[in-house]
Amino acid sequence: MIARNTGFSNLTAGYLFPEVARRRREYAAAHPAASIISLGIGNTTEPLSPHIAKAMSDYALGLATPEGYSGYGDEQGNTALRERIAEVFYNGIADASEIFVSDGAKCDIARIQTLFGRDVSVAVQDPAYPVYVDGSVVVGAAGAAKSDGSGYEGITYLPCTPENNFFPDLSKVGKNTLLYICSPNNPTGATATRGQLKTLVDFANANGCIIIYDAAYFAFIRDESLPKSIFEIEGARTCAIEVNSFSKPAGFTGVRLGWSVVPNELKFADGSSVNRDWNRVMTTLFNGASNIAQAGGLAALDEQGLKDMKDSVDYYLANGKLIKETLDGSNFKAAGVEAYFTGNGPYVWAKFPGRKSWEVFDLILDKCNVVTTPGSGFGPSGESFIRFSSFGHRKDVEEACARLSKLVL
Amino acid sequence: MIARNTGFSNLTAGYLFPEVARRRREYAAAHPAASIISLGIGNTTEPLSPHIAKAMSDYALGLATPEGYSGYGDEQGNTALRERIAEVFYNGIADASEIFVSDGAKCDIARIQTLFGRDVSVAVQDPAYPVYVDGSVVVGAAGAAKSDGSGYEGITYLPCTPENNFFPDLSKVGKNTLLYICSPNNPTGATATRGQLKTLVDFANANGCIIIYDAAYFAFIRDESLPKSIFEIEGARTCAIEVNSFSKPAGFTGVRLGWSVVPNELKFADGSSVNRDWNRVMTTLFNGASNIAQAGGLAALDEQGLKDMKDSVDYYLANGKLIKETLDGSNFKAAGVEAYFTGNGPYVWAKFPGRKSWEVFDLILDKCNVVTTPGSGFGPSGESFIRFSSFGHRKDVEEACARLSKLVL
Repeated sequence: MIARNTGFSNLTAGYLFPEVARRRREYAAAHPAASIISLGIGNTTEPLSPHIAKAMSDYALGLATPEGYSGYGDEQGNTALRERIAEVFYNGIADASEIFVSDGAKCDIARIQTLFGRDVSVAVQDPAYPVYVDGSVVVGAAGAAKSDGSGYEGITYLPCTPENNFFPDLSKVGKNTLLYICSPNNPTGATATRGQLKTLVDFANANGCIIIYDAAYFAFIRDESLPKSIFEIEGARTCAIEVNSFSKPAGFTGVRLGWSVVPNELKFADGSSVNRDWNRVMTTLFNGASNIAQAGGLAALDEQGLKDMKDSVDYYLANGKLIKETLDGSNFKAAGVEAYFTGNGPYVWAKFPGRKSWEVFDLILDKCNVVTTPGSGFGPSGESFIRFSSFGHRKDVEEACARLSKLVL
Repeated sequence: MIARNTGFSNLTAGYLFPEVARRRREYAAAHPAASIISLGIGNTTEPLSPHIAKAMSDYALGLATPEGYSGYGDEQGNTALRERIAEVFYNGIADASEIFVSDGAKCDIARIQTLFGRDVSVAVQDPAYPVYVDGSVVVGAAGAAKSDGSGYEGITYLPCTPENNFFPDLSKVGKNTLLYICSPNNPTGATATRGQLKTLVDFANANGCIIIYDAAYFAFIRDESLPKSIFEIEGARTCAIEVNSFSKPAGFTGVRLGWSVVPNELKFADGSSVNRDWNRVMTTLFNGASNIAQAGGLAALDEQGLKDMKDSVDYYLANGKLIKETLDGSNFKAAGVEAYFTGNGPYVWAKFPGRKSWEVFDLILDKCNVVTTPGSGFGPSGESFIRFSSFGHRKDVEEACARLSKLVL
């Protein structure tokens, strides 16, 4: 019989979010009267912009006509959409040939792991979005889980905590490392400054590293001094790949549309082009994002669509502000809880000193019927933290905050 | 700097279909007056069923309403769609928990290669859909290309030719091998009989092999005696994974929707469940097919949708018959051309004795302005063959046939 891929036997617990969902289901089954509110998964809740929805609806109807029908498109995405993404988000810093449309940032990260294979060194921010680590383990770029719970063999964890202002100590990163950086950060919400990113880019160029820059929350940046793309930083074109998404700004979590940017100057050690291998990944192992979703993406990038996306993000940012105010309340303060919210990302990250993340998760689920995400699920340095997501209907967030404000810790 | 993944340096020529597209573009640029017709890529050309298109259009519009909005769905697919696929196509032979909805068969094959990793032995039908081999090379399950053009190190090629009635000699397959089988076959059009599949399943069970059964063309089967799923064969649940797609029957090549079936009984050597690891792949490295496409899939599986899919496939089968009749014409016969068309698949596979595939491809492009696919792109045993695709507007196929019937070979 065929041996199990050791990448899977090395993986320990289940993927974080299905585990959160499982605990929620179990709780709901045991407490059928409970009105559970989720501040857990970063899942958009507000209806799409009618303008964007209509574009997709019209496109879908058009597929039933000879003029509107379209079969396979270019695997890299429709040219008009690639050009529009370049124009709107990367004016002068990346062109359409460097932009690849996809079915979302998470799927792109998995494909990036296929691109680099098993022989690459990996460093991640700790805490971090779980796919960077889990996908590295699956592909064999990491080994087994360490028995002390400090993560996987072969992955360098870079603590990002209040003590270092959530920016990693790069001196721990070896040469020729694939370095996952997420900004605005999931889960901490920290958003890198221009100076921090310049430090990062200079380090990567000096040490042969490639940065996988996950900018999926870029649309939440409201502080104009903060860069929205790594390619705003001089030198990034020789050391970075950017992954991005329509999921959060356009509410496309279920529609599925994202993109990556791989600059033509980015090279492997043998001088060959990373963009060319990435093109090969996209054409050989992928078959393009849904043409209907791409029609929606194009509508999201016209004047009305851009306005609608901004309004949608504003809505969630206002939720985040409510959650932050609640976590600054006297009951939390009395327990020494410290909540972090930058106003440039959708997550509120809160430390519960002396407690385990899953313990706090269970407490809040039980006492408030509110689902959160345990910080320890994002990495060893996430222990004792809880991530509160600002994605939710306003009235649900308000109700959750009302319950949380009465929580006895 | 980071080393290039040897999987990519091992890959030789570009992915087949972009190479075909490149030659077409070059020819068109050099001959701007040429009216080029494609019988090349297996790309649907006819408008969607209005019934299915309306379902997607309505769903997209609904996303702009509080009642109709949906964010992330289950990564494995919406339950209603999984249940309906199980009911319509696998009644009594697989259940919904074994069905995983995806963005298409090609993407599923790439994920299957991640599932099994680099340490597995691989055997493919020769000729075969290129992704089985190319993806295996990328993931490291195969080595470098052999200098004699006979394929890649570490892959067992199983010739499927007129001499063996297009069914592989299994005695060449080692134990514990991942065995890619496509039926109805791309490119040969051969469709395995119940007896052939029983032989295959018994062999796999006796030798610890797992069959990756690509059934993406199952809807073309018109001979009721031929199985449409590997799971119609006793014993398949312990040795097979099926990959399938809405692309061809529903015209969803651009919409992107497929599914896989991984039976609960399928085990790795250590006794662990393949279904469980596959679930992990889908939840960790994928994020679900577009919800709009899934709404279309559900409509495709109701009474009207099933009728519309059958009509659509009938249309292409009639094209295939026209192409076969043309290739049976006196000009082709005089050159010793032998054309194979089963009426149970969309491809006509034709041998041009004594000629190279790319030479015939270029000849037909130049003299007839018809794009085909060179058989050698599908593997060593495809040399001298040309694949003619029956996907096309009837009038284009008729015009292409008229030109082909005048071709001097």
